[in-house]
Amino acid sequence: MTRSIGFSVQANDGAARRGALVTARGTVQTPAFMPVGTAGTVKAMLPQSVRATGAEIVLGNTYHLMLRPTAERIAKLGGLHKFMHWDGPILTDSGGFQVMSLAKLRKITDHGVTFKSHLDGTALELTPERSMKIQTLLGADIAMVLDECTPLPATKDEVARSMQLSLRWAERSKYAFREPKDRALFGIVQGGLEPDLRAESVDGLVQIGFDGYAIGGLSVGEGQDAMFRVLDVTAPLMPADQPRYLMGVGKPADLIGAVARGVDMFDCVLPTRSGRTGQAFTRRGPVNIKNACHREDPRPLDDQCKCPACRDFSRAYLNHLHRSNEILGAMLLTWHNLQYYQDLMEGLRFAIDEGKMAEFVKEFEFKQAAGDINPI
Amino acid sequence: MTRSIGFSVQANDGAARRGALVTARGTVQTPAFMPVGTAGTVKAMLPQSVRATGAEIVLGNTYHLMLRPTAERIAKLGGLHKFMHWDGPILTDSGGFQVMSLAKLRKITDHGVTFKSHLDGTALELTPERSMKIQTLLGADIAMVLDECTPLPATKDEVARSMQLSLRWAERSKYAFREPKDRALFGIVQGGLEPDLRAESVDGLVQIGFDGYAIGGLSVGEGQDAMFRVLDVTAPLMPADQPRYLMGVGKPADLIGAVARGVDMFDCVLPTRSGRTGQAFTRRGPVNIKNACHREDPRPLDDQCKCPACRDFSRAYLNHLHRSNEILGAMLLTWHNLQYYQDLMEGLRFAIDEGKMAEFVKEFEFKQAAGDINPI
Repeated sequence: MTRSIGFSVQANDGAARRGALVTARGTVQTPAFMPVGTAGTVKAMLPQSVRATGAEIVLGNTYHLMLRPTAERIAKLGGLHKFMHWDGPILTDSGGFQVMSLAKLRKITDHGVTFKSHLDGTALELTPERSMKIQTLLGADIAMVLDECTPLPATKDEVARSMQLSLRWAERSKYAFREPKDRALFGIVQGGLEPDLRAESVDGLVQIGFDGYAIGGLSVGEGQDAMFRVLDVTAPLMPADQPRYLMGVGKPADLIGAVARGVDMFDCVLPTRSGRTGQAFTRRGPVNIKNACHREDPRPLDDQCKCPACRDFSRAYLNHLHRSNEILGAMLLTWHNLQYYQDLMEGLRFAIDEGKMAEFVKEFEFKQAAGDINPI
Repeated sequence: MTRSIGFSVQANDGAARRGALVTARGTVQTPAFMPVGTAGTVKAMLPQSVRATGAEIVLGNTYHLMLRPTAERIAKLGGLHKFMHWDGPILTDSGGFQVMSLAKLRKITDHGVTFKSHLDGTALELTPERSMKIQTLLGADIAMVLDECTPLPATKDEVARSMQLSLRWAERSKYAFREPKDRALFGIVQGGLEPDLRAESVDGLVQIGFDGYAIGGLSVGEGQDAMFRVLDVTAPLMPADQPRYLMGVGKPADLIGAVARGVDMFDCVLPTRSGRTGQAFTRRGPVNIKNACHREDPRPLDDQCKCPACRDFSRAYLNHLHRSNEILGAMLLTWHNLQYYQDLMEGLRFAIDEGKMAEFVKEFEFKQAAGDINPI
């Protein structure tokens, strides 16, 4: 097929890949982390601040946007990029995952899923065709096929049936996706924790043919070991010359382990959501800034971080803001966490370039284990 | 007395004054609007963003800060400027007003006021001496005497007794305020809506001697006409060579009327609080951005405003953010409103410099009356 985006791998270190994803709206260095811009905003961040952390692509949520302000309204206003003032590439999900996790009265058939909005109870339907239409209206640079994220635990038969439904939906998504050449569509590998079903899913998707391939259905409570086992058997089966995207993952150690297994792209609400609740990610592990131990601590959260939270303020101040439920607390810690995630990806890219992935992992684990006891 | 700050009037237009307030941390062009940094943060704004709007001084609330994180803790961390990363001048209020409006189980005696914290019920006391101590610990460039904001309506006797209590507290505040020369203390004129009591208050305060004089007890529901009548009789009695500060005021038209009557400084939560609830101030009057009419409006809120909300986004987007309770909505509209207030003050300063105060008022009223009907 004609590729709507370009992807090239520039270096390998073991299974880890250092690449570049070229889109009409700019190049994304991989491995890449995509901040989540749920409802047309990366929560508590100006778009230029998102850019300042080093992010080159953001994610938009079809489910949230189809409910409010609606895809039609965003299209009328010139598309999602203009609407949210983000001129870099945007990847949109299909809406399927959040219909399953947020909407009410869901009913899945082969045709699609009907549900009621969690906002106002409006009855809605999402089909592969409708999801493609919405993502086109939004103007996504990378769209995702509609899939069913198989709820676990499930019997192998249930996982197989669900994966095959996703394959049929992927085919309909591809057919419905009639797009100018500068937009891409990714397939999503399902199959739960079953190696043979994952393999079958990859095969089916590759036969349909996509611009990139995501791994779905993980980070839903199965644990890191199980997730890594799935990656170990799945990633090697995926086309080596196309981007691999692990959806909804994850913690810093999850990202590192997935990169080591050949994944190129990630998204997760963890850095932004944690930032709003006082959880910070640091080189020395997670910090709950609301803890009393930070109340009079004049030190920055991380003296090697260049974000405004670390550059201009003390832990004591961040503690005060979060204990007082001040919006600035959410703003600063969100910024810090996104900076941390981008710095982590930059470190991984550098490590792969230099063939030092093993050292990177070792140093990461050492520092995280050392914890926040030593002055930083 | 030796002045701890410098103040000079550079131009007059009628009663309106164009001046400069020189502090150790920088010069404030007057008439000036001070954004309110309640609990050590101008809500939803980074300090550099506050600065970017043109603000040269911010206000801190003694009541909020004494409760959390406490003045002692802020002092230990190097003072309020360092704590909140604001290197310009800071004016702190005395805590008196908010004790009366927020705290529980208040009891006022000649000694001071006892109350319980609205946060956790802790029993606390605020006296003139304690207020001076707290404002010193915070490191305020301009401190305010402790006063009683007389609750209206009240009989003339009640207003007189309250005003005289405030005078005694002002004297004790002055005595307790033993500060290095680079910090200033302002007295506060009380006396309700009674011209003779306002005059008596000014006299008493001037005899004690302060670096500047505030007008308190207004904008508490008395209406703009009553407020302007008080200013008409009070401002001319206040020392012409010292700054005049109208506390807690107000709407754009209030500021303009007060400047026309000789006021130099203002503070108010209106622009920040309104920004969080979807109320925007514009050249053509107030706009409720949540109104359905903005849902598909691609125009900026105000195409002549240089704030990020107006520069980068549509009314439709701001409408979406506020209807979705997104933090970015509060961030953008707060920024816009503070920019509007600073631009308004800049316009007033220019008008006084040019001797065009009357034209300024006329144009302001015309545009506000024209409303938001015409495309802007």
